[in-house]
Amino acid sequence: MADPKFHKRSSPQSIKQLAELVNADIHGDETLLIEDVAPLESADDKSISFLDNIKYKEDFKNTKAAACIVSEKMIEFAPESCTLLVSKNPYKSYALIAQNFYPDALPESHISLAAHVHETANIGQGCIIESGAVIGENVTLGDGCWIGANAVIANHVEIGSYSRIGANASVTHAIIGEGVRLYSGVRIGQDGFGFAIDPAGHVKVPQLGRVIIGDNVEVGANTCIDRGAGPDTIIGSGTWIDNLVQIGHNAKIGKGCVIVAQVGIAGSTVIEDYVVIAAQAGIAGHLTIGMGSRIGAQSGIMQNLEPGSEVLGSPAVPIRERLKHVAYLKKMTKPLKKTRKKE
Amino acid sequence: MADPKFHKRSSPQSIKQLAELVNADIHGDETLLIEDVAPLESADDKSISFLDNIKYKEDFKNTKAAACIVSEKMIEFAPESCTLLVSKNPYKSYALIAQNFYPDALPESHISLAAHVHETANIGQGCIIESGAVIGENVTLGDGCWIGANAVIANHVEIGSYSRIGANASVTHAIIGEGVRLYSGVRIGQDGFGFAIDPAGHVKVPQLGRVIIGDNVEVGANTCIDRGAGPDTIIGSGTWIDNLVQIGHNAKIGKGCVIVAQVGIAGSTVIEDYVVIAAQAGIAGHLTIGMGSRIGAQSGIMQNLEPGSEVLGSPAVPIRERLKHVAYLKKMTKPLKKTRKKE
Amino acid sequence: MADPKFHKRSSPQSIKQLAELVNADIHGDETLLIEDVAPLESADDKSISFLDNIKYKEDFKNTKAAACIVSEKMIEFAPESCTLLVSKNPYKSYALIAQNFYPDALPESHISLAAHVHETANIGQGCIIESGAVIGENVTLGDGCWIGANAVIANHVEIGSYSRIGANASVTHAIIGEGVRLYSGVRIGQDGFGFAIDPAGHVKVPQLGRVIIGDNVEVGANTCIDRGAGPDTIIGSGTWIDNLVQIGHNAKIGKGCVIVAQVGIAGSTVIEDYVVIAAQAGIAGHLTIGMGSRIGAQSGIMQNLEPGSEVLGSPAVPIRERLKHVAYLKKMTKPLKKTRKKE
Repeated sequence: MADPKFHKRSSPQSIKQLAELVNADIHGDETLLIEDVAPLESADDKSISFLDNIKYKEDFKNTKAAACIVSEKMIEFAPESCTLLVSKNPYKSYALIAQNFYPDALPESHISLAAHVHETANIGQGCIIESGAVIGENVTLGDGCWIGANAVIANHVEIGSYSRIGANASVTHAIIGEGVRLYSGVRIGQDGFGFAIDPAGHVKVPQLGRVIIGDNVEVGANTCIDRGAGPDTIIGSGTWIDNLVQIGHNAKIGKGCVIVAQVGIAGSTVIEDYVVIAAQAGIAGHLTIGMGSRIGAQSGIMQNLEPGSEVLGSPAVPIRERLKHVAYLKKMTKPLKKTRKKE
Repeated sequence: MADPKFHKRSSPQSIKQLAELVNADIHGDETLLIEDVAPLESADDKSISFLDNIKYKEDFKNTKAAACIVSEKMIEFAPESCTLLVSKNPYKSYALIAQNFYPDALPESHISLAAHVHETANIGQGCIIESGAVIGENVTLGDGCWIGANAVIANHVEIGSYSRIGANASVTHAIIGEGVRLYSGVRIGQDGFGFAIDPAGHVKVPQLGRVIIGDNVEVGANTCIDRGAGPDTIIGSGTWIDNLVQIGHNAKIGKGCVIVAQVGIAGSTVIEDYVVIAAQAGIAGHLTIGMGSRIGAQSGIMQNLEPGSEVLGSPAVPIRERLKHVAYLKKMTKPLKKTRKKE
Repeated sequence: MADPKFHKRSSPQSIKQLAELVNADIHGDETLLIEDVAPLESADDKSISFLDNIKYKEDFKNTKAAACIVSEKMIEFAPESCTLLVSKNPYKSYALIAQNFYPDALPESHISLAAHVHETANIGQGCIIESGAVIGENVTLGDGCWIGANAVIANHVEIGSYSRIGANASVTHAIIGEGVRLYSGVRIGQDGFGFAIDPAGHVKVPQLGRVIIGDNVEVGANTCIDRGAGPDTIIGSGTWIDNLVQIGHNAKIGKGCVIVAQVGIAGSTVIEDYVVIAAQAGIAGHLTIGMGSRIGAQSGIMQNLEPGSEVLGSPAVPIRERLKHVAYLKKMTKPLKKTRKKE
């Protein structure tokens, strides 16, 4: 059970309500009352769990959960005592049910007396502005925004309704959509890394753009997104970005992308919609990464990728090719005896 | 055109004034009045643009810019309507002209009533200290410094004139030169990662040095520079450091270096002047990287580099060698049929 | 000598006192009075230094240090004038002696009038809470805690005695042990990166866990540790983590580990006790890294590691194997002439 100090649970719900919520079929006891969500191995007879990955089949067989969300093909492994919610997308169904038990707990709306809100700022209804937050001249906050303690929103920034800015984050030169979450320590809109190299002293190129963030974007802790040099830096709606990611000036990220921790995207690169970039990968500047491409962890991308590419390695190549490289080196450097035995 | 909320443009200027500013020759209409800078593809007949990279030749041919800064060898591709400023270093010339149209816009000097400035701090003329900034005992700020909101400058730190510290940055145990910019979230001077490994509990080695930063250094958002263990950590004048870079204790970085995002430089390593380190590269501790070396993205440097080295890969080797490795693996793992066809 | 503005030195001590402190034998002048610690090359005749690495043997031969801490096998290289402290672990002995000369200098205990401490917070004896720090509802701080300027401690967080939170750090959903140090800009307890991917909009999975940090843990500047999704994210006692490290939700790190800068550890991975992970390495999710394993810099770990593994490369393989791969590629791509000569 989640620690109630940190997570407020709502009241129990019938399995029927839950099935309806996620459009799933009930196989089993339709009268169940469910009180909580829990992982397979720690769930009890009042909790609902889920199975999404065949790797956890044994946990499923042994679970004490009252109910479990599964796909059709997992039904055969179910323990007898367990009522099933059969769903096409068990993980998404779990997400919705967990949201239902643990709805987002916002503090009551208030503006701390210890916040520093400029008199020209335009603050929507029902906002929360915590202690030490600094809201600059002519900033616009939509309704229901939550600005964390010691966050800094610079002059003229616009933030859409129901967006949240984490503690100690800083935002400048930016227009931000609705339902966006910037986590703690995020840096948005500082100058891009633009200058003419000169031994007598590098010459700064004024960074004249902004950062434009769509709706429902998440930006992880301590991630940095520089503003454009002339064009804007753009993050498409519904894109999720993890912690400690670097996004350079003029980059244009599409909709629904997933960018995992410590990825770096250099300046002026275009990432089309629904691209997934695994952790610690790096993408050089001025490239186009085609829609739906998948880039493996620690990859280094030096050239454009066609839509739907799946690549790995530094420099990145198609995944299958990369696996061949690895296998080849392994084979060629095996101790002689073993090689003989095999052949 | 840059968003006037965020970027204040100065008044129009004659092409002659601009040519003089950057020491360029005018080819075309010497009576032009220029109002703005803009990229080739979006420039209009009141703007000046630039061409620095042959890759954008087509944009140049089709530009509607009133004027364009180019090198001599690009003259032949110019559209008829476009007046040229012919320069030896078009990008640097563009930087200077853009600075001229968009001069750095500082707020009026003031010390916020919501800043916390210790009574023993020594604050120069014309400083800006924003809300929530904390300035410790005996801190010295030169004239015209700008300390961002919620930045923390610890006791005894010295910062030279016209330097700027970004929002939410923190600086301790440091002596900082003039004209330095630390962006938001930068961490300067915390303890280096020094301890004797011991299963009974690692034993901390007191970190007794400082961070010394020269003049006109830029340090990107959320970058960390640890103080020395005994010697100081040193950043030479005119060096530019991007976001999310790690610089370990006792490192000595020379003058005019360029260190791109997410690079890591381990403790006690010496980087000589004018070295360029591309993104996500890592340099082990106790090495010397010779003057003017160039290190490719994601490289891993495990040994000293001679001045002027150009390396790539992990472990890094000369670029040409690395490209051979990549080509060799590609060739040896090609599907058999294709290999036959080729041979 | 350390800059006395930043580092307060305590009074001189006899070599006998120092030998007793670290349980070492004196070879030489037992009446020496030592005033300071210093590196071999800059030590003077009032300072004690140490030699831990044969690489610095020449510095040892030429040192002007009054005394030096060495292992038995280095005695033969000692300069005549130098009194030796012979120790089994010279670096640890140096650490303890340096701590003795430069004890941790805490400010006097006080709660700044410019800190924002909620009336329900439970603050131990002798705490320091600096300007702009925000302490939420029902937060518990043990005795002697030090909360840096503009740090944010969210509701219900518990922090054990003598722990320190750096400037501009933020902590939420966490239980933290005694003697812990979180450096500036650290982010603890924000939501993990958990959601069901869906082109219609990724669906957030509520992150219902916490971050549990043991005793005497160090967490470097701007490092991020996400809270668990259901289980907790756990950092074992005595583990040291460097700057800019990413630790994903549900990760379980053992005791006494060393995690160097810019490492990334993905969700649900278990790192057993005493593992050492060098800089910029990445570890995929849902893995187990066996006790005492050593992972080389920039490695990419895609599968479980047995206890005591030593690996390198991306994908990582045993170090010896990786070195063979590198040597093989070098040999196979050498210019033809050189190859002939050699064979």
